[in-house]
Amino acid sequence: MSNSEQTANTDRHQQKMQKHKEKVDAAIARAQEERGVIIVLTGNGKGKSSSGFGTVIRTLGHGYKAGLVQFIKGTWDCGEAKILATLPGLTHEVMGSGFTWETQNKEQDQRAFDAVWPKAKAMLSNPELRTVMLDEITYMLAYDLLDFDELKTALENRPPEQNVILTGRGAPTALRDLADTVTEMKMEKHAFKAGVKAQAGIEW
Amino acid sequence: MSNSEQTANTDRHQQKMQKHKEKVDAAIARAQEERGVIIVLTGNGKGKSSSGFGTVIRTLGHGYKAGLVQFIKGTWDCGEAKILATLPGLTHEVMGSGFTWETQNKEQDQRAFDAVWPKAKAMLSNPELRTVMLDEITYMLAYDLLDFDELKTALENRPPEQNVILTGRGAPTALRDLADTVTEMKMEKHAFKAGVKAQAGIEW
Repeated sequence: MSNSEQTANTDRHQQKMQKHKEKVDAAIARAQEERGVIIVLTGNGKGKSSSGFGTVIRTLGHGYKAGLVQFIKGTWDCGEAKILATLPGLTHEVMGSGFTWETQNKEQDQRAFDAVWPKAKAMLSNPELRTVMLDEITYMLAYDLLDFDELKTALENRPPEQNVILTGRGAPTALRDLADTVTEMKMEKHAFKAGVKAQAGIEW
Repeated sequence: MSNSEQTANTDRHQQKMQKHKEKVDAAIARAQEERGVIIVLTGNGKGKSSSGFGTVIRTLGHGYKAGLVQFIKGTWDCGEAKILATLPGLTHEVMGSGFTWETQNKEQDQRAFDAVWPKAKAMLSNPELRTVMLDEITYMLAYDLLDFDELKTALENRPPEQNVILTGRGAPTALRDLADTVTEMKMEKHAFKAGVKAQAGIEW
């Protein structure tokens, strides 16, 4: 490349980046409303719960307090639970009845849910908690353990600065409508489906 | 509901869950290959980096060592960086030149990339690291700071047990082809686009 070609390339890059910067800056200037948001992480792809945990870590990293309720996982040997338990500022509750296809007993699942839900509601009315994560709560809706209106009321009455992260496959339309941010995590490929064994540190 | 109706409901639930359990168990039995996997978290939705961080936390939670290279974020006031820095077992490197639309200087970006890439390569050849996360590396490919073949060679020659997580928008087809697990995070809705200010603990 000649010197003049290189200079032209450099200018083009600089112009392109300047244009991009103007777009980013304008978007930042437009977004000035300050309030807590409802984030739904759904879809059949890998990454919903781990993304929620990463965001809880972010919240704690800024010195805020956070709450986490795990409606399915959390009792067994979960890598994230071990680390999360060591972090100051996090209140962590586990429903702990395991997968509904393991218990195969709806009454038992309902009792386990009814025991943990008041703790989740207490988090959703606690202004000290900047972020509350309800991990795999969509299954509680899908299996009729939780009534959507009950969840909706708790979300709508939460402290205005509080962020809530809800995860799990198949988030219903009414929940998506209520949310500010919805990510649909689409599985394009999954190692497990291709015969690779699920492993500690990746799947749990 | 009469007692007999309730019993029928209970039976139906039990049968449905038993069927689901058989499917889950069969899938687990089929997946017996033990090796590290390449995970790509891409798409324009919220959750790519935070999902990677959550998975790194999982790895550390099981007592494994992990590596993290942040190619864009990480220098400034990131909530996750503050927490990650306190975790034993994590090697953390930051490219630290900031967003390319802020520097607007490709030569400077290239120098910053060239300084950090050997550290990433060293992680990708270190069998002690169970998981290596290359955060926002897709932008290095998109801006021609990193040659795809260079990345491919490093990934293919890594220790067989090592997992690699690569994040960022617009993962190229060649990278998706190389990966074992690909999640496309689709933005269905974003609070920021609706005018809510980006906030500490959620966006960074």
